[in-house]
Amino acid sequence: MSGNSLGKIFKITSFGESHGKCIGIVIDGCPPGIKISKDYIQKELNKRKPGKNNLETKRKEEDQVEILSGFFKGLTTGAPICMIIRNKDVDSSFYEEIKNKPRPGHADYTSFIKYKGFNDYRGGGRFSGRITAGFVMADAVAKKILEYKKIEVNAKILGIGGIKIDKNNQIEEIIKKIRKENDSLGGIVECKILNVPVGLGEPVFDNLESDLSKALFSIPAIKGVEFGKGFESSKIKGSENNDEFLIKNGKIYTKTNNSGGILGGISNGMPITFRIAIKPTPSIRKKQRTIDLKKMKENFISIEGRHDICIALRAIHVVESIASIVIADHLIRSGLLYKGN
Amino acid sequence: MSGNSLGKIFKITSFGESHGKCIGIVIDGCPPGIKISKDYIQKELNKRKPGKNNLETKRKEEDQVEILSGFFKGLTTGAPICMIIRNKDVDSSFYEEIKNKPRPGHADYTSFIKYKGFNDYRGGGRFSGRITAGFVMADAVAKKILEYKKIEVNAKILGIGGIKIDKNNQIEEIIKKIRKENDSLGGIVECKILNVPVGLGEPVFDNLESDLSKALFSIPAIKGVEFGKGFESSKIKGSENNDEFLIKNGKIYTKTNNSGGILGGISNGMPITFRIAIKPTPSIRKKQRTIDLKKMKENFISIEGRHDICIALRAIHVVESIASIVIADHLIRSGLLYKGN
Amino acid sequence: MSGNSLGKIFKITSFGESHGKCIGIVIDGCPPGIKISKDYIQKELNKRKPGKNNLETKRKEEDQVEILSGFFKGLTTGAPICMIIRNKDVDSSFYEEIKNKPRPGHADYTSFIKYKGFNDYRGGGRFSGRITAGFVMADAVAKKILEYKKIEVNAKILGIGGIKIDKNNQIEEIIKKIRKENDSLGGIVECKILNVPVGLGEPVFDNLESDLSKALFSIPAIKGVEFGKGFESSKIKGSENNDEFLIKNGKIYTKTNNSGGILGGISNGMPITFRIAIKPTPSIRKKQRTIDLKKMKENFISIEGRHDICIALRAIHVVESIASIVIADHLIRSGLLYKGN
Amino acid sequence: MSGNSLGKIFKITSFGESHGKCIGIVIDGCPPGIKISKDYIQKELNKRKPGKNNLETKRKEEDQVEILSGFFKGLTTGAPICMIIRNKDVDSSFYEEIKNKPRPGHADYTSFIKYKGFNDYRGGGRFSGRITAGFVMADAVAKKILEYKKIEVNAKILGIGGIKIDKNNQIEEIIKKIRKENDSLGGIVECKILNVPVGLGEPVFDNLESDLSKALFSIPAIKGVEFGKGFESSKIKGSENNDEFLIKNGKIYTKTNNSGGILGGISNGMPITFRIAIKPTPSIRKKQRTIDLKKMKENFISIEGRHDICIALRAIHVVESIASIVIADHLIRSGLLYKGN
Repeated sequence: MSGNSLGKIFKITSFGESHGKCIGIVIDGCPPGIKISKDYIQKELNKRKPGKNNLETKRKEEDQVEILSGFFKGLTTGAPICMIIRNKDVDSSFYEEIKNKPRPGHADYTSFIKYKGFNDYRGGGRFSGRITAGFVMADAVAKKILEYKKIEVNAKILGIGGIKIDKNNQIEEIIKKIRKENDSLGGIVECKILNVPVGLGEPVFDNLESDLSKALFSIPAIKGVEFGKGFESSKIKGSENNDEFLIKNGKIYTKTNNSGGILGGISNGMPITFRIAIKPTPSIRKKQRTIDLKKMKENFISIEGRHDICIALRAIHVVESIASIVIADHLIRSGLLYKGN
Repeated sequence: MSGNSLGKIFKITSFGESHGKCIGIVIDGCPPGIKISKDYIQKELNKRKPGKNNLETKRKEEDQVEILSGFFKGLTTGAPICMIIRNKDVDSSFYEEIKNKPRPGHADYTSFIKYKGFNDYRGGGRFSGRITAGFVMADAVAKKILEYKKIEVNAKILGIGGIKIDKNNQIEEIIKKIRKENDSLGGIVECKILNVPVGLGEPVFDNLESDLSKALFSIPAIKGVEFGKGFESSKIKGSENNDEFLIKNGKIYTKTNNSGGILGGISNGMPITFRIAIKPTPSIRKKQRTIDLKKMKENFISIEGRHDICIALRAIHVVESIASIVIADHLIRSGLLYKGN
Repeated sequence: MSGNSLGKIFKITSFGESHGKCIGIVIDGCPPGIKISKDYIQKELNKRKPGKNNLETKRKEEDQVEILSGFFKGLTTGAPICMIIRNKDVDSSFYEEIKNKPRPGHADYTSFIKYKGFNDYRGGGRFSGRITAGFVMADAVAKKILEYKKIEVNAKILGIGGIKIDKNNQIEEIIKKIRKENDSLGGIVECKILNVPVGLGEPVFDNLESDLSKALFSIPAIKGVEFGKGFESSKIKGSENNDEFLIKNGKIYTKTNNSGGILGGISNGMPITFRIAIKPTPSIRKKQRTIDLKKMKENFISIEGRHDICIALRAIHVVESIASIVIADHLIRSGLLYKGN
Repeated sequence: MSGNSLGKIFKITSFGESHGKCIGIVIDGCPPGIKISKDYIQKELNKRKPGKNNLETKRKEEDQVEILSGFFKGLTTGAPICMIIRNKDVDSSFYEEIKNKPRPGHADYTSFIKYKGFNDYRGGGRFSGRITAGFVMADAVAKKILEYKKIEVNAKILGIGGIKIDKNNQIEEIIKKIRKENDSLGGIVECKILNVPVGLGEPVFDNLESDLSKALFSIPAIKGVEFGKGFESSKIKGSENNDEFLIKNGKIYTKTNNSGGILGGISNGMPITFRIAIKPTPSIRKKQRTIDLKKMKENFISIEGRHDICIALRAIHVVESIASIVIADHLIRSGLLYKGN
C-alpha cells in the first residue's frame, strides 16, 4: 500500500478518482519563489483536455484548477502545493450496470480483488486516465524549475496502430476508420529532453532510466519503454551501437545518440530520448467476453461510454509531464539546480 | 545521491566496486526463520559466474560468498543480512592507461563528471556488471520467500544480435563469429513469473510494471522493457489486444495474456511476462573514437580487457534475480505473504 | 525539502496554511472497507476546536471537513484519502503589520530565511498550530484501524506552568491569572496507549520510540519527549528501573512499567506511556524585543492576535492523534493487522 | 520491517550483531572527494572503545575497521561506503544459558516475540550497544562534511544517577560504589552543535527536532530527549521562555537560547542544544525476577557478563555521532552545502 507518491525531493502525491469529487496532486519539495498562477496552470491543463476535436472522448471536462496551498502572492512558498480539479460532467450510470463485469484490458478485475470490492469502480476510479490531470498540474510547476536550466521536454506521436505518422490529417483518417469498426488503436510516443546537464541520475537503483521508466509506467495503458535505440540496439553490433565521443568548440558530445542521452544511468548531455508503447484503448463498443464476478459465470460486455479511440494522442502531453517531473526531482537532488544560477 | 537502495519492505542496498575490495548487498526487511546457507547462496551465485565456457569473459571470479550478518543457526533472524564476495582476480593496469579516455557506450564519462573525477574507474567501478552479483545474492533469499507461494521466475534468451535463438549451439556460432570481428552483440531476454497471486502492485506509482521496470533498468546495458505484448500492442486493435476473461473450474483466467499478467499495474494471476533489450557489450577490441579528458582532444581507443561478447547471456540469471526481489517485496508489502500460509 | 510526509505504509502528507485556503491531509495506504463518514470525521475534528470555552483562542473555526477522495459508499476504498477544511474566519491584517518583525519563539525568522522571504507568514502559515487539524482528520481514520485490535490512546494534562493538575477548575484559575499578566504558560501532557500487541517497532532506526518521537516533535511547541520513567530513570539504579517479568494466567507482564511499554524499541504488551513538554504559547501581549528584518535594526513587538494562553490544553487531542497514526502505521507494517482478525 | 536505514540523502544502513561476524554500516549519498583513511576512522572508533579504564566493560574490542567500498586513493568516491569491524573477543556461553530467560530491561523478550525466536540473542544481538560502533564509523565521514561549514558537535555528561557531575574523579567514585552493590546507573548527556547555518530542517515532519530525536532514540537505553529548555520550559511563562531577537554587528542572534537553536523545527543559527536521558544499564549482577519462556514459569536471573555500569559514559561519543549524521544529511538536503563554499 501507500504507492501514490513519486520522487525524492520534488515529490508528488496523487489522489482522486474519475467520478469522485476531484482529481488532485500535492507537490512537496518545490523551491520557493517560483512564479505560477491559476491561469498558467489552467493553460497547461487544457493541453490534455479532451473534446477538443472529434478524435477524442466526448466527456467535456471543464477542469477548473484550484490551488489549495503552497501559493502566496503569485509565487510558490516552499510549502506543499495542493491543486485539484473538481469532477463535474460525470455520468456513472453505466458503471453501476457493469460493476460485476470486469472490462477486458481494464483494472476492474485486479482492483476488485486487491481492494476486496471496496474500490470506487465508477469510470475506472483510480485507474482512469483522468488521474493524469494531476501529473499535468504538477508538471506546470516542474516545468518552471526546468526553465532555470533551459531544459525542454517535447513528445510527439510516432505511430498509430502500426502506421507511421508523418502528417496530422493521417491521424484523423485512421481514427475515423477504427471508430466505425467499434474498435480502438494504440500508438507509439517519442519524447526528447533537451539541454539536460551531464550528471543527473543516482545509480545504481535511482538511475535516470530507472526513475523515468518507473514514472512512465504510471501512465495507464503504457506497456513498453525504451531509451535511445532501445530494442533495436539488441540487433546491432557494439561498434554500431556505441556512441563515439567527439569535441567541438571545447564541448564534448557524441557522434550518434544511440544511448538516448543516458550512459550508466546518468545523463551525458545529449538529448534524452525515449519511446513508449501505448496499448489500444481497452474500452470498445465491440462485444467481448467477460465474466460475472457475482454469479461466477461467463458473460459478454459491450462498452458504451465516451472514450478516446486512441489514448496515445492525449498521452503525449502526459508523457511530457511525467518526464519533466522526474527531471526536476533529479535536478534538485543532484545539487545542480543550485549551481551556476 | 543515495540511490543504492531498492524496495520498501524487502529492501536491498548495494555497495562495492568491480576492482575494489568486494561486491556486497544488505537485505533489510527479510522475515525471520528462512533457511539459507553459505553453500546455497554460493550455488545461486555460481549461476552468473563467468568463465564457465569460452563464450564469456575470461575473468575467473572465484566469488566466495561471506554472510556477514542477519544469519544464525542456519536461518535468517529478521535482522539485516549483509553478504559480500571479495574481489580476487583483478587486473587494473588497463584502466590506469585509459582513465582519461572514456570508453564509448560506458559510464566512464558520465561518472567522471558526476563524481568530479573521484570515482573508482577501475573495471568500471560501480558501473561494472559485476555489481549484479549482489542482486543474485539477494535473490537467493528472495527466492525462498517466493517459494512459500510457489512463485517461479524463469528467464531465457530470445535473440542475439537480431537472430532468433531456437537452440543452444546457435549461440556459440554467433559469438565465435563476432569475436573474430573484435565486436560484440546485444540480445533480448524474456522472463516469465508463474503463480503470482492476484493483487500485487500499489498503483498509481508503485504499480508492478513501474517497480519491475525501475529494478530492471538497474542492470547495466538494459535499454528497453516491455510487458506482455509490449510494443506490438501499439500496432493491433483493442479487440485483438484485450484479454477476455473466462472461467474454468471456478477459476478466473484470461483467454490470451497480452497484458503480461498485469492490469492497471496489479498482477491478475496470469503469468507475468516481460522482455528486455540488452545492448551489445560496449567494450570492444575494435578501434573507436573517443576523447582525452585531460588534454580535451579527440583520440582513439581499443579495449583489450576480458569482456563478455554478449552480456545478454549472463544477464539471464540477473534478470530473474531482480524480478524475484521485486516480487518478494510486493508480496510482503501487499500483506498476501501473511495470508493463507 | 519534501518533509511533509510521515509513515511508511499508513502514510500521511500534510498541506495547507493557517490563513490560506485550507488545511489538508492525504492518507495513503489506508486499508479498504473501513467505515467512516463526514459526520464522524467532523466529530473527531471538533475535539480540537478552539473557542469552546474562554480558556482558548477566540478564533471561531467552523472547520467543516470535506472528504475529497478515497471514500465511496461510506467506506474507504484503499485509494488515497484527501480531506480538507476551508479556512473561513481569517483576520490577516495583524500579520501584514509585523511581517518584517519576527515574533520571538515563533518560526517567523527561521522560515523567512529558509524560504527566502517567500513563505506565507499570515498566521504563522505552515507553522501554525492549525495545521494539526490535518493530523486529527488522519487520526479519525487511524483510530478505526486501531479498533480492530482494541488499541486505545488516551492523553491528559499533567501540569501547567509547573503546577500539577488534579482537578479541572484549577486550570481555569491558572489561565485567568496569566491572561491578566498578558503572558502565557506551557504544560506537560501524558499519553497512554493500551492493548498494543507485542512486536511493534522496526529497530534499529524505525523503532517505536524513534517513530513516536519524530511524529510528536511535529506538533508545534513540543520541546521534550520521554518514555516510561524517562528523565527520572537517569536518576535511579538499574535494580529499581528494570521491569521484572511475571506471569499471570499464562500471560506475561512486567511488575512495573518504567520502560513505558517499549523495550529495545519494540512494544512489550504493557501500556505505552510517554510525556511531552509543551512550551508556553510564544504569542503574548507583553512587549518583547525583536528586530526589523528590513531595516536590520532592533525593535519591539506586542502580539495582539487571538491565541491560546496555554497550547497544552488543545494539544491533548493532537498528541493522541499523532500517536494513533504512528501505531496504525506500525500495526500494518508489522503484519500484525492481518493476523488473528 | 526494513527499519535499518536513516537519513534521506546522506543515508546510513546499519547491520551486524554483537556476537555475530561483524558490526557494519553502509553510507549512501556521501559526496565524492572527501579525504578519509583507515587510520582516521579507527581513531574515531577508538573514542567509544570500552576497556579504556576500569569504569567500563571489560570486553576488549579490538575493533579494527575495514573500509569495504566507496573509497579510492584516500578519498570518498560518491559510491556507497561500507565499513565493518569484525567481532573478535566474543564469549557467548552465558547467552546460551539464559536464552529462554529474558533479562529485565533488555530487548530479549520483545525481540523473541517479534522475530519468532529466530533472533540472534547472543550478547543482545542487534540490540547490543555495540551496534553503535557503526554509527561512529558513519560519523567519521559525516564530521568531514560538517567541517566544510565549521560545524562542531560536542557532548558531555551532565549527571549520573541523579548526581550533577562537575569534575571527573566524581564519576569514578560513584561507579565504584554502585559496582559494589552489583547495580548500575543511568545519566544525562548534553550536546551542543555550533555554527549550524540558519535553515536546516524540513517541516512539518522532517523538522530538525523530529529527525534528531528519531535518530537519538536509536541509541539503546535512551528514554528521553529535550531541546533547549525542554521540560523546564513547560514550567515558565512565555515572556521568560521566548528568546528575544537582537542584532550585533549586523548579525541576528537571540538574547537567550531556550529554544535550543531550533524554531519551528528549523535551525536559527544559535547553538543547537539538547539533553538525553539514559537509563541505568539493565544488565546487573543483582538477582531479578524473570520468566522462563519455554516452561512459562516465573524464575530468577543474575547477569554475570561484562557490562558497563553506566552506559551514559560511553554514550557521549555515540550521541555526538548520531547528531553529526543527522546534521550532515540536512546540510546536503537543504542545498546549503553547495552554497558559499
